[in-house]
Amino acid sequence: MRNISIGLLGLGNVGSGTVRILSENRESLARRLEGRVTVKRVLVRDPSKARDVELPMPALTTDPDDILDDPDIRVVVELIGGIEPAREYVLRALTSGKHVVTANKALIAEHGAEIFAEAARRRLSVHFEGAVAGGIPVLRAVREGLASDRITAVTGIVNGTSNFVLDTMTSSNASYTQAVTAAQRAGFAEADPTLDVSGRDAAHKLAILTLLSFGVRIRPDDIATTGIDLVRAFDIAAADQRGYVIKSLAQARLGPDGRLHAYVTPALVPKQHIFAGVHGAYNAVLVESAGLGHSMYYGPGAGMMPTGTAVVSDIIEVCRDVLGFVRRSTPPEAFHGVQPATPAPLGGLEHQSYLCFHVPNVPGILGRVASTLGAHGVSIDSMDQDTPGDRELLEMVIVTERVSRARLDAALREIDAFDVTAAPTHHMPIVDPM
Amino acid sequence: MRNISIGLLGLGNVGSGTVRILSENRESLARRLEGRVTVKRVLVRDPSKARDVELPMPALTTDPDDILDDPDIRVVVELIGGIEPAREYVLRALTSGKHVVTANKALIAEHGAEIFAEAARRRLSVHFEGAVAGGIPVLRAVREGLASDRITAVTGIVNGTSNFVLDTMTSSNASYTQAVTAAQRAGFAEADPTLDVSGRDAAHKLAILTLLSFGVRIRPDDIATTGIDLVRAFDIAAADQRGYVIKSLAQARLGPDGRLHAYVTPALVPKQHIFAGVHGAYNAVLVESAGLGHSMYYGPGAGMMPTGTAVVSDIIEVCRDVLGFVRRSTPPEAFHGVQPATPAPLGGLEHQSYLCFHVPNVPGILGRVASTLGAHGVSIDSMDQDTPGDRELLEMVIVTERVSRARLDAALREIDAFDVTAAPTHHMPIVDPM
Repeated sequence: MRNISIGLLGLGNVGSGTVRILSENRESLARRLEGRVTVKRVLVRDPSKARDVELPMPALTTDPDDILDDPDIRVVVELIGGIEPAREYVLRALTSGKHVVTANKALIAEHGAEIFAEAARRRLSVHFEGAVAGGIPVLRAVREGLASDRITAVTGIVNGTSNFVLDTMTSSNASYTQAVTAAQRAGFAEADPTLDVSGRDAAHKLAILTLLSFGVRIRPDDIATTGIDLVRAFDIAAADQRGYVIKSLAQARLGPDGRLHAYVTPALVPKQHIFAGVHGAYNAVLVESAGLGHSMYYGPGAGMMPTGTAVVSDIIEVCRDVLGFVRRSTPPEAFHGVQPATPAPLGGLEHQSYLCFHVPNVPGILGRVASTLGAHGVSIDSMDQDTPGDRELLEMVIVTERVSRARLDAALREIDAFDVTAAPTHHMPIVDPM
Repeated sequence: MRNISIGLLGLGNVGSGTVRILSENRESLARRLEGRVTVKRVLVRDPSKARDVELPMPALTTDPDDILDDPDIRVVVELIGGIEPAREYVLRALTSGKHVVTANKALIAEHGAEIFAEAARRRLSVHFEGAVAGGIPVLRAVREGLASDRITAVTGIVNGTSNFVLDTMTSSNASYTQAVTAAQRAGFAEADPTLDVSGRDAAHKLAILTLLSFGVRIRPDDIATTGIDLVRAFDIAAADQRGYVIKSLAQARLGPDGRLHAYVTPALVPKQHIFAGVHGAYNAVLVESAGLGHSMYYGPGAGMMPTGTAVVSDIIEVCRDVLGFVRRSTPPEAFHGVQPATPAPLGGLEHQSYLCFHVPNVPGILGRVASTLGAHGVSIDSMDQDTPGDRELLEMVIVTERVSRARLDAALREIDAFDVTAAPTHHMPIVDPM
């Protein structure tokens, strides 16, 4: 039976999962591939550290050259994370004629162009299923399963931490701060949760989903990103009363103007919507396409074994090509030819909105807000006001009809400039029923 | 640019969708494949019939030999449906060295062994993504995405008609008969809905899912199958009050005894479960596996464009291999070597159950039922009784604790034999929370 040697860069959480899955499924993999996959070398920082996984000691090395310069190693699996030195190692691996598998979303989102160009030049594969939504084979589904379809929107619950926090607020009436603490205790949030709750992590994943879904390369920094830290227990309850749950969504959509819109934002989702059932730290990606309509891919968004499963499925795909003597540049859509683009301004989008105004309980205030909305062409679907506790300020909740974001923003700018307005208006888009 | 000629058998609903998708996406397909796909001939019954799709008239033929004997045609796409002559044509296509794509679930479920054996012998591919869950790329996900994982259960809402009927009963308090009529009006049920509502269609799809998930070949007829026609508005309401919705599920699961259990049944699903959000005629398949945990694939279960999308994704995969000069027998798991198996008796399964007893409102009846359950080791989680209208009969609803199906069945046999029992006890399994 033929053998393929692979090298791992990094033996942390996902690296250990990858080694474990390769080892536990050794026989079935050999049968499927009609060949063996051997982890020949693993780059680690400290070879003497105690580890859960079984590897022959000589496999561990602290010198990347032991992997990158070994002509016997055909596939390099990058699981270090972060930009450098991951970027340098991946480019060197390609230059040395090795295929690459990675689960590094930041690397692919920010330096994908350079990496794909090098891979294409040498007809090598770069796989990165583990970079988005953990083990859910969503990239494969978009790339292969929907290969014949035209995608019009891709929307993800792609940050497990944010979903856990919002879900905890929903199920237990917790405040945002309490829910973040619960997420940290449950191991679903870092000590500093900023990368997750700010929406930045989701923006990285959205850039990758956009590349695969639309063949368009956008920079994560160009994605309009709103975090979940503005969501209050009051908003969760107000949404619930109106038949919605609040979810943090990352969406790329061809707008009515034909341009690509991309943003990360908390949004109100109808309870009947399939997204409403995505609880805890789970992830889901909903694809809208011309032929298939709505399809969704759901599963755990992170973790040693789920992400390890995605990495190993990529390893299998590369090894199948190597064993079959197939020389093809994968992803076959040849991303290196893709042009960079900037997402369109959000003003062209149209949706219903949830608005919460922070204005004092004085006569005529409701009329003043409603008239200003009307003057900008924003129609009101429902309007309620509430005076929480004994405070002077109203929580005035308005649900709008569908309206362009440009009109809405203009109205809110004017209302937020009222001398009586105590704080900027809370606003979140409302997702259409399916 | 190289060209691949394909032949279509059948130009009904899915066939028209397939031609339309191939035509509308001609340029992007050519770019992805670095080659062209041409529909050279199409077998139809009546070439003079008016059709929605644009094809040069000479492409239509009533003679299957024009496709099966044409050495220029490399891929045969079978979309006739049913067993014969589809089976004969598919086998002839393989014998002539042509790859096969089909969306025919009955053919694959009942004659897969014969077809895979012939394909393997000649190193040809047989793809059938469209056979299960319409356009949802679930077979591809199981085959490729979870290639490195060990699946322990696969559960599907795979019959859109049944889901539409139950969903209509849930959302509008309709009776079973009213809901079936609504499904027929909406185009989601046939004039004779038996194949769908009896669970037989779901059993076919489950046999295919079982093959891909467990590498085990079971006969659809060996799958314990319960239809949805026993579900009453009363059960829907009783489930709702207790926090459940009723869904028709097809499940294959490795039981606690290590044997494979396979069955189709209406079941109670917790409202928090991701399946509870699967409305209308949508399909979903939930996979439980050692590495990934729970993952789900969701989308439209049928229709011209969704199923056409799946068929074209299969065509692309085959053509990519043909253009790349790859000779591989796909599915690569080599199903032809798979041994036939019989699902284990359901007695070994353990789950909670919903029971509804049809007994008269006489003193001591509740105690008699409860004692009989207890004598068989069936513990009661909750018990309520209701006398609908002015009838003499009780609707006594009991939710049990987890118990083996063997114990439950023994208890129900005894209770159903009571002289006072008016009708066999309704019973449905309850799905565990996720």
